[in-house]
Amino acid sequence: MMTDIQIARQASKLPIAEIAERLGLTPAEILPYGHDKAKITHAAIASLNGRPSGRLVLVTAINPTPAGEGKTTTTVGLGDALNRIGKRTTICIREASLGPNFGMKGGAAGGGRAQIVPMEDMNLHFTGDFHAITSAHNLLAAMIDNHVYWGNDLNIDTRRITWRRVMDMNDRALRDGVVGLGGPTNGFPRQSGFDITVASEVMAILCLASDLADLQERLGRIVIGETFDRRPVTARDLGADGAMTVLLKDAMQPNLVQTLENHPALVHGGPFANIAHGCNSVIATRAALAMSEYVVTEAGFGADLGAEKFLNIKCRLAGLAPSAVVLVATIRALKMNGGVAKSDLGKEDAAAVVRGCTNLGRHIENLHGFGLPVVVALNHFAGDTEAETDALRSFCTDHGVEAVIARHWAEGGAGAEDLAHAVTRLAESGKADFHTLYPDAMPLWQKIETICTRIYRAAHAEPAAGVRKQLEAWEMAGYGDMPVCIAKTQYSFSTDPSLRGAPGGHVIPVREVRLNAGAGFVVAICGEIMTMPGLPRHPAAETIMLDRDGQVEGLF
Amino acid sequence: MMTDIQIARQASKLPIAEIAERLGLTPAEILPYGHDKAKITHAAIASLNGRPSGRLVLVTAINPTPAGEGKTTTTVGLGDALNRIGKRTTICIREASLGPNFGMKGGAAGGGRAQIVPMEDMNLHFTGDFHAITSAHNLLAAMIDNHVYWGNDLNIDTRRITWRRVMDMNDRALRDGVVGLGGPTNGFPRQSGFDITVASEVMAILCLASDLADLQERLGRIVIGETFDRRPVTARDLGADGAMTVLLKDAMQPNLVQTLENHPALVHGGPFANIAHGCNSVIATRAALAMSEYVVTEAGFGADLGAEKFLNIKCRLAGLAPSAVVLVATIRALKMNGGVAKSDLGKEDAAAVVRGCTNLGRHIENLHGFGLPVVVALNHFAGDTEAETDALRSFCTDHGVEAVIARHWAEGGAGAEDLAHAVTRLAESGKADFHTLYPDAMPLWQKIETICTRIYRAAHAEPAAGVRKQLEAWEMAGYGDMPVCIAKTQYSFSTDPSLRGAPGGHVIPVREVRLNAGAGFVVAICGEIMTMPGLPRHPAAETIMLDRDGQVEGLF
Repeated sequence: MMTDIQIARQASKLPIAEIAERLGLTPAEILPYGHDKAKITHAAIASLNGRPSGRLVLVTAINPTPAGEGKTTTTVGLGDALNRIGKRTTICIREASLGPNFGMKGGAAGGGRAQIVPMEDMNLHFTGDFHAITSAHNLLAAMIDNHVYWGNDLNIDTRRITWRRVMDMNDRALRDGVVGLGGPTNGFPRQSGFDITVASEVMAILCLASDLADLQERLGRIVIGETFDRRPVTARDLGADGAMTVLLKDAMQPNLVQTLENHPALVHGGPFANIAHGCNSVIATRAALAMSEYVVTEAGFGADLGAEKFLNIKCRLAGLAPSAVVLVATIRALKMNGGVAKSDLGKEDAAAVVRGCTNLGRHIENLHGFGLPVVVALNHFAGDTEAETDALRSFCTDHGVEAVIARHWAEGGAGAEDLAHAVTRLAESGKADFHTLYPDAMPLWQKIETICTRIYRAAHAEPAAGVRKQLEAWEMAGYGDMPVCIAKTQYSFSTDPSLRGAPGGHVIPVREVRLNAGAGFVVAICGEIMTMPGLPRHPAAETIMLDRDGQVEGLF
Repeated sequence: MMTDIQIARQASKLPIAEIAERLGLTPAEILPYGHDKAKITHAAIASLNGRPSGRLVLVTAINPTPAGEGKTTTTVGLGDALNRIGKRTTICIREASLGPNFGMKGGAAGGGRAQIVPMEDMNLHFTGDFHAITSAHNLLAAMIDNHVYWGNDLNIDTRRITWRRVMDMNDRALRDGVVGLGGPTNGFPRQSGFDITVASEVMAILCLASDLADLQERLGRIVIGETFDRRPVTARDLGADGAMTVLLKDAMQPNLVQTLENHPALVHGGPFANIAHGCNSVIATRAALAMSEYVVTEAGFGADLGAEKFLNIKCRLAGLAPSAVVLVATIRALKMNGGVAKSDLGKEDAAAVVRGCTNLGRHIENLHGFGLPVVVALNHFAGDTEAETDALRSFCTDHGVEAVIARHWAEGGAGAEDLAHAVTRLAESGKADFHTLYPDAMPLWQKIETICTRIYRAAHAEPAAGVRKQLEAWEMAGYGDMPVCIAKTQYSFSTDPSLRGAPGGHVIPVREVRLNAGAGFVVAICGEIMTMPGLPRHPAAETIMLDRDGQVEGLF
């Protein structure tokens, strides 16, 4: 059997200008990066304004398990399948972060016969967007310390600077440190650290901004810390917003690539799915909708974390409304949710599938709560038995949703045509009646409680000391209309990662809240969230190299 | 009068594929980055092997003064002029560092009618080479701390880790700090810091490597520090060389852009000219020589620092030999070398020109010492008087070299045709008989003394405690054949930046020596060398922004 990378390398890629042409873009409307990648120019994006919008389909999943669910693979397979059945469809997914690829193997964009190419480039520097975000973020950081160095006219309290630096690298030694040592010429020593680039608020901002003007507005609103008299200091106060926008002007242009079956994919932006909203850029999704009948996109992690943010943050702020949701599950992951150990996944166990379906059922209910029609995609594995798939189907029938077996991994788009038909039936049924979970005007703490009780089914949320006072202070300062971004474990409805299935009645402690004034949301930290990963004992980097033909080995 | 940026924006750029075609490159042999930039593929570079080589012309200058000399402008103007007189010529210069552009205004590639475009891109992310170098450098740094974290099998002495991190940003707060704070999960606290990316040994390596295999070899040889029993630890010991090469595989491909007059320019690599050798990449220079009759390139700073390193390091290691040298001077800079203050440069002062010519004369002597024929290019300014230019001409005649007035800044290539003719006469005269200043086999300290006495005309070099012992240890370890890279002020032959003209008989203190085992040279630090700049009180970043048309303002 061929590996993902072998399949990707056999791809018959079309020149990217041909893919662009199928979207109605002229050669002057794209900026090629090599022969198989391009950016869509700002001018081309602007010219799409006012075009009728295609239908938006969200792909999400049950809670992730070590068994794997195949959300991206299903997104790609469904996109190819929709194109096969005659719907002009564009796929919208996130860009990969470079750093983690040098830790654990991974980083493919899809898998099997459902992949986006060129895979190597997408997992390395791609078109440089994340480097641009790193530069913009760190320019602001440099300007903060420089301002303090030259006299601190803004009266910044260096103990209360919250703007750290970023690097697209897994480097635990940078999490926490001291900068500014070495004497007067190097500034004032203070404690600080680095996050990984995808955790940068600049990343979240780039993914939510509608154009360059909006980007600069949002960058200017970033709060970097406080003065000695506790007033917020913004990037605009430091005069950094213009230069940051200049650094991001190319990165704001969506990247066009293609599937193995030569259908268009916009791969753009990649915010963390815990402390940020975890989906691709608004600018890419909107452009795709203006150029296509269907857009298939995905949200990070499971539907509780990823779809909730996609709907309550991205769709709210960008005025988007999905026509249907695909909820991805695998028999293996359902069995793990039903209590089976990873080592026992090879054994048929329909009863465990049924037990694991409690997790699936909970997500279906939640998604219905947003007014959205749902279809379950069973991402098929060779070892799945008929008894197991029947158990899933019958569970779904009982819950009023269709379950469709999808074989895109083995068969490409052809294997997902049933799913594509099910999706178009739902999307074109007029059943979708999307509404967010809470109104803008709801107080911030009540928003947190609403998500915790209605999505996570907690008995209640428990604020740490100072949290409610902080939220009220932000409400007084005019930030009360913002949505809330919950940062918690992706493995469970609770805050205990080992509690699979559908736990309920638990308490969700809210340890800390953070204001992302530029991105436009308030983050509620529920549990330990790592914003700078480390490398494992034997990082993938040790075996990543070029082979004799100059091809990358060990990255996948 | 139009500014540089206004002239650049009026350029009639040709599609980059057409520029490539003039070099004999097919569309498949380049990787476009937008419509006006491209990389030349590794395959295309490899196919050039064995082609006859064109003639190499080095552009260098008198010691820099605040008056400005216009070395890059002259390089570009001469390249255009050579093309105008029928010589197929390619220009080879360095890439700009992003960080400093947000400090002081600047960063143009040439000036007036002698520029390389697209200027904005070249001063921002360009094709991402410096970001790739940053990633490769910092991956190695992360792997060092990660190795120590997971048990330190190599027995690395964390106090003796010399490999710092890098960022392409002016950020003085990062010069010196502590990493690894925050408890056991974040590793072992230790003192360290950041340099700017152009100071990275990875940058020097990329610029000296002949191909990807050589690149990986050199990366593997990087010494990152020592074990507790004082043995060197290399990047290869950490298994980092393969992954670093993967990160650099695109960056190793030279970048093709064009002059305002649509002639080809390879802009590739940009090592510091103090702690590194300060010239563009070997791979670009070699490729240009294989595709052109003439290649015009430049070296950093004045001829004492830049040309010396170009000749003793780059030409030695790459087997290159220039056919002629252009020594750039301006009347204004000569007057400053003759003791005139910047505020008095507007007054005619032929006597000061004559006094300042001692600096010029010293460089001519030095360059002749390498066996190279020299022509002096007087980069013409509107205020230069006939008495002043006559003074220069007569000085040059007395010293056996021709001085040619070049007006490329105002007139483009047409203004430098006289210079082009003078260059071809010299280059085709067969006079060049290039030899390096010292043989590989000379002991390291003797190499340092040779450069200090023969080029800098010092009485002698003075080693700090431990320097000679360290050099002998490296000789024992097999590094004795390497050339030496002098890091000292660029403003004077002495180590006192205020001593203009042609000081002699001084002492050059060698404070510290560093081994760049991967790049292949030993650095001798003579005086204070800053490897991480800071931002000024009012950084350019405060006024850099996009205008209403989406064009960059304030960067130039």
